[in-house]
Order: sequence, then structure tokens, then C-alpha cells
Amino acid sequence: MKKLLIIPDSFKGTLSSRKICEIISERISVHFPRAEAITIPVADGGEGSVDCFLSATRGELVKCEAQNPYFEPMEGFYGLLNGGETAVVEMAACAGLPLVEDRKNPMLTTTYGVGLLIKDALLRGAKEIILGLGGSSTNDFGCGAAAALGVRFYNSRGESFIPTGGTLAEVERIDVSGILPELCGVKITAMCDVKNPIYGKSGAAYIYAPQKGADEAQVKLLDDGLVHITEVVKRELGKDLSTLVGGGAAGAMAGGMNAFFGAQLRMGIDVVLDTVNFDSLLDGADVVFTGEGKIDSQSLEGKVVIGVARRAKKKGVKVVAIVGGVDGDISGAYDAGVNSVFTINRMPEDFSVSRYKSEENLKQTVDNILRILK
Amino acid sequence: MKKLLIIPDSFKGTLSSRKICEIISERISVHFPRAEAITIPVADGGEGSVDCFLSATRGELVKCEAQNPYFEPMEGFYGLLNGGETAVVEMAACAGLPLVEDRKNPMLTTTYGVGLLIKDALLRGAKEIILGLGGSSTNDFGCGAAAALGVRFYNSRGESFIPTGGTLAEVERIDVSGILPELCGVKITAMCDVKNPIYGKSGAAYIYAPQKGADEAQVKLLDDGLVHITEVVKRELGKDLSTLVGGGAAGAMAGGMNAFFGAQLRMGIDVVLDTVNFDSLLDGADVVFTGEGKIDSQSLEGKVVIGVARRAKKKGVKVVAIVGGVDGDISGAYDAGVNSVFTINRMPEDFSVSRYKSEENLKQTVDNILRILK
Repeated sequence: MKKLLIIPDSFKGTLSSRKICEIISERISVHFPRAEAITIPVADGGEGSVDCFLSATRGELVKCEAQNPYFEPMEGFYGLLNGGETAVVEMAACAGLPLVEDRKNPMLTTTYGVGLLIKDALLRGAKEIILGLGGSSTNDFGCGAAAALGVRFYNSRGESFIPTGGTLAEVERIDVSGILPELCGVKITAMCDVKNPIYGKSGAAYIYAPQKGADEAQVKLLDDGLVHITEVVKRELGKDLSTLVGGGAAGAMAGGMNAFFGAQLRMGIDVVLDTVNFDSLLDGADVVFTGEGKIDSQSLEGKVVIGVARRAKKKGVKVVAIVGGVDGDISGAYDAGVNSVFTINRMPEDFSVSRYKSEENLKQTVDNILRILK
Repeated sequence: MKKLLIIPDSFKGTLSSRKICEIISERISVHFPRAEAITIPVADGGEGSVDCFLSATRGELVKCEAQNPYFEPMEGFYGLLNGGETAVVEMAACAGLPLVEDRKNPMLTTTYGVGLLIKDALLRGAKEIILGLGGSSTNDFGCGAAAALGVRFYNSRGESFIPTGGTLAEVERIDVSGILPELCGVKITAMCDVKNPIYGKSGAAYIYAPQKGADEAQVKLLDDGLVHITEVVKRELGKDLSTLVGGGAAGAMAGGMNAFFGAQLRMGIDVVLDTVNFDSLLDGADVVFTGEGKIDSQSLEGKVVIGVARRAKKKGVKVVAIVGGVDGDISGAYDAGVNSVFTINRMPEDFSVSRYKSEENLKQTVDNILRILK
């Protein structure tokens, strides 16, 4: 074994993708000390995504002035990859739920600071923006971020304002003529692992606003606001977002980014794989280690393991998945290119017991897999 | 992969060794259809041992007249291997606990029928006897079996009788001059996985007689009887059995067989490995699959996995252990020659839940191990 790739999803609630990478590569250094082990911690768009990309690509962390969800000054950050060509911005950095703590209120919170991060990156010359969506405190359709990048919103009295969740319904006109010239020709890709539409019973407000602090009445108002802004976008910009899959992600920031900047919504794993040039990394690799908390017969789509396997299969590279659990028929995973799926449960123990042993159990499991590969 | 050996211990309480062999070889036929898969279900000496040997060696099942633990006529059986050279007798066939059901009483039960099985095999020309100990209803020191083979026991009044647990204390003289001539030069090996001495607090009576139906007072009497017969053996035959490791196995039949016939007491797995010519089978093998219910840092000695691994290591053959659980540091297993230890727990579930999924879990685990070996 000369070259091994390590690209696991996190095990939700027990082990981060970075930690898993660390454990697997440590074991590889024991059993295959001369092999090259390339670790690619997988970002899902949420908190920690910039960190993952930087770790996988040896990019540069940039800090800059920004604003928090209440328009208050704060220090923000983002990552620059590919020699500054690509910027990775996680919206949680300036609009994340942990930033508002006891002031949760998606009627008032904004993504304005996220726009400032993107602006800073553009002014530094970035030609591609990867926007991580997830963990938001907002429901503003990304209007705050759009405003920071030059989009202007007007109410019925012709007054310009920056809409938040509670004032989306007041938008009557949208002016994109003032958009930052640096945005011209820039590709924005939003990492978005949910499929919720912008509005409606499975939309951003109904599904996610309660955990951001909205009560029942506010949820209704927020949803009305999203219906309204979608109509205005259709009228003003000629874009029909009513059926946009994933448009509801991150307080419908996904929808807004698509509307204002033509952002593509893509599964996180696909964005990661492209950004790290996974196909090239596969050349000459003996094995790819991937994994996730649980693999089951449902929802194979969009999963890290499957995304990784499909690429590896094309290059004929063996894929070993290490998971916390397997439930039901997973023949779809084998079809996608997974060779073997191993579970980390070293004893027959309930998750309430085994969760505290995840690290040791993973270590032992990896150890025995590497031993059999010798 | 051209040749694979399958030699697992049972998973106590969930899967028999035969069942495990069946599952593994079925999976091999799917993934390596042209490979030779040799299954060796492991006998531990108890019920089913003859069956295991016959299955592993393509021997012949022999039925014959015998007697049950109450000297009543019954049909017994044993196995002939190596063209009739070797007989495998399981004492449970004529002295097993299931045979007495609601008549459990180790004061009265006998191994006489077991002696009849051995006698039948000898008269058919067997030159080696493998005696499986385990699952007994008796506590007679094997005196019944010895009597069937020609040993005579006398009481203080000079009367010949066949001692049972309750009458061991009456034995005053032992006459071996009438031993069946066919026994001359025959090697008897007793399979014996326990280390209990013949008598005392960790002896046959105190440890095992209660489950055979003895009450507290009877246990004391049975133990006294074993102390007595051991003394008589020493005086009459010149053999000191007081510290014989494992002599207490099967109601101290192990001790008696050693005393009267020079039977060797050996770990079941070692007897199996020798009998099936495991060292020869290893030649040209790519992998050995073994396993057991649980592997832990204690008691690696005498375990199937370790016994198998030690032999395979000498021949440089890869050993994969599949187990129900791993507890603690098992570096001793790796040192012995185990390459990898995989557990069958596909979900983090307590044994009370997972035990009912053992078959499916094993199947899935084997499947993924074979996939990685491709």
C-alpha cells in the first residue's frame, strides 16, 4: 500500500470528520509507515466547514471585519484556497445560531455579515465562492448578504432598507444594478444538503424557524414573507423559485443566493470532492477510507460514502466504509462502488453505552481493517 | 483466493459452529465461486461433537445397542474416522443430562453406556478413541464406563458391583486384569475444556453436581465419594490424581479414564486440529476463518481462535477471526497469529436485542470481509 485517501463524514454526535481522519491516519502510520495517507475532512457547509477545507487543501485563513446577526461589528473569517482563486465562506461564521444565544429571533436577524465576508474575498481577488449553508440563526432569504453585495431593496414607499425575516413582506422592488462589479463572472456555489423548498409546510420557516426561536405566529409571518419575496423576485428578476429544491436551506439564503447571484445549490460532498480535486487524488491510490454515522437503505443520495464511492469506482479504487451502524439492505452502496462496510461496534452494546467508546472502537476497527489489508 | 479454511467455535447461546460454517461457506461461494472452502465445525466434547467430527472428516456414523444413565437399554451412536482407525464417542450420547430429564440424580446415574459405545468401537477395530466429555448427568468417576470395558470394582465384603456417584465410597478394591484385550495399545484422548480437579470446592461435585440435580447434602456425599475413589486408585493402581488438572470434567469421568486407561486430557480444539490434520489442510490455504462468541484479554488459553491461530502462524496463513464481541486488550491474539478480529454487531445494540440478529449480522460481516479480500 502506497497511497491511501481518508475522507469520512462525521459520526453525528460522537466524532468529527477531522477526528476520524486523525484516528485513521494514525493507525495507517503504524501499519503502513511508508504509505502516503491523505486526509480530507468533509465539510457539510455548517460550522467548521472552512476549517475542513483549509485542512484538506492547505489553504489560508483570512480574518476581516464583519457584522453579527444583529448588525453589530464582529471579526469574521473565511478561507482562501487555490492560491486565492477560491474563497470558502461559512454562513455560520457571521449568521450562526451560536452567535445569538439568548437573543434568538429570526424576525430580526440578518445575513448581512456573510455578505461582508464574500465582499472581502472578492476584493482580494477571489473568482469563485463556496458558500457553506447550515447552522443559521436567520430567515432573511439571504437579503442581508445580498444587500452587503450591492442589491437594493425598496418598500412600497420607495424607501431602501435591508430586509430581515420580519420585513421580507415589505419588499416591493429589487434593484440589482448596484451589485459589486467584482461579482461579475464569479461562480457562487452554495453547499446545501437539505431539500426543503423556500416556503410552505416543508419550507424554511415551518421546518427550521422554531429552532431559531420563532413562535407559531412568527413562523406564519416568516413563511408569508418568503412567499412574498419569491413573488417579488419572479416579478422583478423573472426567476421562478417556487419549486427550487433546497431553496429553503439556511433560512432560504439558498433561494436568495440563487435568485440574486445565480448561485448553484450543490450537495456538500460533491463540492468538497471537486474542490480538493478528488479525481486526481484517486490516481495511484490503493484504498479510500470513508464512513458516516449510519448507513441505511434509505437516503443513500447525497451521502458522503456514496458520493466518494461513485468517484472511486470510476477509477477502480477500492472503497472501505467504516460506520457506526448499518441498517437494512445497503446493496445500493455496493452498487455505487463501496467494497466493504465495517461497523465500529466492538461489543453488543446499546448506543447509550457505546457512544462513549466511539474513539476507541473506531481505532480498533481501523486497526483490524488495516491488518487484513497487509 | 483458492483455498479457505473455516473453523469457528460456536457463539454460545446464538450460533452453533456448524451454522457458522454454513453461513461463511455460503458467502464464499458467492464471492469466490471457484475457491475451495473447507469447513471444520469445532466440537468441544459435548453434545454434537460426533456430528462435528463426522462433518469435518466425512467419517461414518455407527449406531449400536447401549444403555442410558439408568442402565436401561437404548440405541447409542459414535463416529468412525480415518477408515475406522479412530472412533469418536461423546459421553453425552449415553450419559447426557437431556437423557434423564425429570430423573436427575447424580447419586444413581452411570456412564456404563458410554463404555458400551467404546467397546463396540474397539470390537470393530478402532485403534484410537476420542472421548468427548461434556453435558453429563453423572458423577461416577467414569466407573460405569470402566466396568463396561472390564474393570471390576469390589466392596469391603468382596462383592463386585458397578459404582455410581452414590456408591463410590464403597469401592475397596479395583481389578484391572479383566480389561478388554482390544483396549491394549489403544490411545484414548479425552476432550476436556475445564480445569476443575476431581474433588474439593472446585471439584466435579461442588461445581457441577447441583445442575445435575444434587442437593447440598448429596453434593457433600458425592465429593466424599470422589475423595475416596481417588485414594483407592492411588493405593490400588499407584496413580496420584489429586492434582490432575481437568480430572473433574464430566462428573470426574476425565479422572477415571486417566486412572483406568491412561487417557490423556486435552483441550477440545487441539484434539480437533490433530484429528482433522489441520496442519496439512493449511498447506496452500489463503485464509483461515475462525471465531468465537467473545474474545477478551483474559483466558486466551484453550480458546479456539488462539489454537487455530498458532498453527496457522507457523505456516504463514492469514487468520481472520469473526466474533460476537471484543473486550479489553487482545494483543495476545495478534501475537498468537490472528491477523484481524471483526465483530458482527452491525448496529449499536444491546445483546438482548442483537442476539436475535446473530445470523444476519454474521452473514453481513462475512460478506464485507470477503469483499475487502477481493
